[in-house]
Amino acid sequence: MKIIVDAMGGDNAPSQIIKGAIDAVNEYKIDILLVGKKDIIEDELEKHNYPENKVEVLNADEIISNEDNPATAIRRKKDASIVVASNALNEGLGDGLISAGSTGALLASGLFIVKRIDGIDRAALTVVYPALDKPALLVDAGANTDAKAEYLYQFALMGSAYMEKVLGVDRPSVGLVNIGSEKGKGNQLTKDSYDLLEKSNLNFYGNVEARDLPNGIVDVIVCDGFVGNIVLKLTEGMASMIFKTLKDEFTKDLKSKIGAAILSPSLKNIKSKMDYREYGGAPLLGTKKPMFKAHGSSDAYAMKNGINQLIKFIEKDVISSIEENIF
Amino acid sequence: MKIIVDAMGGDNAPSQIIKGAIDAVNEYKIDILLVGKKDIIEDELEKHNYPENKVEVLNADEIISNEDNPATAIRRKKDASIVVASNALNEGLGDGLISAGSTGALLASGLFIVKRIDGIDRAALTVVYPALDKPALLVDAGANTDAKAEYLYQFALMGSAYMEKVLGVDRPSVGLVNIGSEKGKGNQLTKDSYDLLEKSNLNFYGNVEARDLPNGIVDVIVCDGFVGNIVLKLTEGMASMIFKTLKDEFTKDLKSKIGAAILSPSLKNIKSKMDYREYGGAPLLGTKKPMFKAHGSSDAYAMKNGINQLIKFIEKDVISSIEENIF
Repeated sequence: MKIIVDAMGGDNAPSQIIKGAIDAVNEYKIDILLVGKKDIIEDELEKHNYPENKVEVLNADEIISNEDNPATAIRRKKDASIVVASNALNEGLGDGLISAGSTGALLASGLFIVKRIDGIDRAALTVVYPALDKPALLVDAGANTDAKAEYLYQFALMGSAYMEKVLGVDRPSVGLVNIGSEKGKGNQLTKDSYDLLEKSNLNFYGNVEARDLPNGIVDVIVCDGFVGNIVLKLTEGMASMIFKTLKDEFTKDLKSKIGAAILSPSLKNIKSKMDYREYGGAPLLGTKKPMFKAHGSSDAYAMKNGINQLIKFIEKDVISSIEENIF
Repeated sequence: MKIIVDAMGGDNAPSQIIKGAIDAVNEYKIDILLVGKKDIIEDELEKHNYPENKVEVLNADEIISNEDNPATAIRRKKDASIVVASNALNEGLGDGLISAGSTGALLASGLFIVKRIDGIDRAALTVVYPALDKPALLVDAGANTDAKAEYLYQFALMGSAYMEKVLGVDRPSVGLVNIGSEKGKGNQLTKDSYDLLEKSNLNFYGNVEARDLPNGIVDVIVCDGFVGNIVLKLTEGMASMIFKTLKDEFTKDLKSKIGAAILSPSLKNIKSKMDYREYGGAPLLGTKKPMFKAHGSSDAYAMKNGINQLIKFIEKDVISSIEENIF
C-alpha cells in the first residue's frame, strides 16, 4: 500500500508532516509518496532513518494556503502540492491521499480532480466530533451550506460506512441535528431529511438536539454544512473560552495556583477526554478515491494517526461499501 | 404602570412567580395583574406584604404546558392563563405581559392574539446570550426555522432597538452568525442578509463565526431560528458538559476535593460570569405590545428582574422605536 502525503500542507509543514509520514512508514510498513518542494523534502528526510525503497518524492513547486480561494487556486496553481498529489491519486500512484493543508483546497481537489462517486450528489467534509468519551463523525462539517434531504441521507450513509469499517462501530447510530427531539420538528430540510432517514436501512436514532451533542449519544451526526460548521466551531469556542477562563482564575493568585497544582492531573484528564488528536483528522467522503483531511495543526503524532485511519479507510474499502449501498 | 403576570407559567409557578411579582410591586412601585387560578393565587398572596390596591387577580382556569402543541392549545384552551393574559394585554388592562411558561404558547399568543407590528413580517424569540462578561441579544432564538433575508434584517433592527433602549448600549453592534468572517461566505440566506444589513443604517459588524460567540464580540447576534436554537442549546450543552466533567474529576478523591475546595471561589466566579439570571429573560420582539419571556426555571429573583426589564421595555417605548424605523 502506498499513501500520498501532501508534505507542504498544515501549520507544521513540512517538518512535522514528513516526520509523521516516516513514523508511519516505520510502524505500519507502508510506502509513501511525499509531494512538495523536492529539495526541502529531501533535506527533511536526511534527519530520519527509514527504508529508502519505501519513500518516494514527487516535486510540486507551489502551495495553496488558507488565504487562497480554493476553487480558483486549484485551477491556477497547477503545480501546487495538493493538485499534484490529487493527480497522482487519480493516476494510481498511490491508494489514498492525506493533507493537513487548506480544507477548501482538499475539497476542491476532491470535487474537480478526483471527482465524486457515481450516484453521490455531494461530497462532504467530516470531522471527529469531540463528544465526551465517545467519538462521533459529524457529516457535513462545512462543504455544502445549502443542502437537500437527499444529500443528508447520503451523508448519513457515507458516515455510517466509515464508522462501521474504520472505527469498528457495529450498526452505527445516526442522529439528525435538530431543534427538537420529536418527528415533525425543525425546518423544511430537517423535516424532509427525517422522512428519508426513517425509511432507510440505516440505524436512524432520530433527531438530536444540540444540547445533547457534547454527551455523545450517536455515532454519526448528520446536518447540512452550514449547521455542521456552526456546531463544530461553537463547540471549539465554548471549550476554549471555558478553559481560558479557568486558567485565568486558577493563576490569579498564589492560593489559586496551589489549588490548580493539586488538580493538575484532573484538569489534564478532562482536556485529554476532549482531545481527538489520536484520530488525526477525518475523511472527505464522497470522492472516488480515499482522501483524508488531517488537522491543520497536526504534529507528527497526529499525522501518523491520520495515516493509520487512512490505511483502514483503504483496507476496509469504504468506497466500495458506499458504492454498493447508494443505489 | 401595570404589568400582567402569567402566574401559572414556569417550573416554579405559582409560588416563586407570585413572590417575584410582589417583590417587583414593592421595589418598583408598579401595579400588577396576576392571571391564573384565583383561589391558588389568593392563597399565595396571603404569604406576602404588599399594598393591596396595587395587586389585582384575573381568573384563568386552564394552563398550557410544554407538552401542549402551542398553536392548537391557544385556540382550544380559551381559559388558559397565557390566553387570558394576552387578551387582557390587548384590552389595555396592562402595559406589558410577562410569562415563564411555555415559550411556544407565548409566541403563539403573540402571533394570534396580540398580533404583529405593521410592517414586521415575523416575530422573533430572543435570548440574552451568555457571552463572557458582556450580554448579547440573540435574535431569533427559535421562532422562525425557515427565514428570509428581510426577516433577519428586521430581527437586527428590533434587537438593536431593544439593546439600545433597555440595556443602554449606544449604537449596538450587529453580528450575522456565519461560517466565515468575510463577505460572500455562508449559505444563500446569510449572503442575502449580509447585503441587506450592510446597506442598512444599523451598526453592522459583519459576519461572526460561531467560535467567537462565547467571547461576546457583538451586542446583537442575528440568525434564523433554527441556527439560533442550535447556538443556544449547544452553548448550554457545552457549559453543562464541561462543568459536570469538572465536578466529577474534582470530587473523585480526597486530594481532588482539597484542590477544589481551595478553588471554590474561582469556580463560583466563573459560573456567575455565565449566569444571566440577572436579566430574567428576554423579550418576544415584533408584537404590537410588550411581551417578555422569563426563563422557565425562574425563581422569584429572576422573575423580579424580568419584570424590571419589561418595565424598561415599556418606559423606553421600544415598540414605537421599531415602528418608526421599519419603514
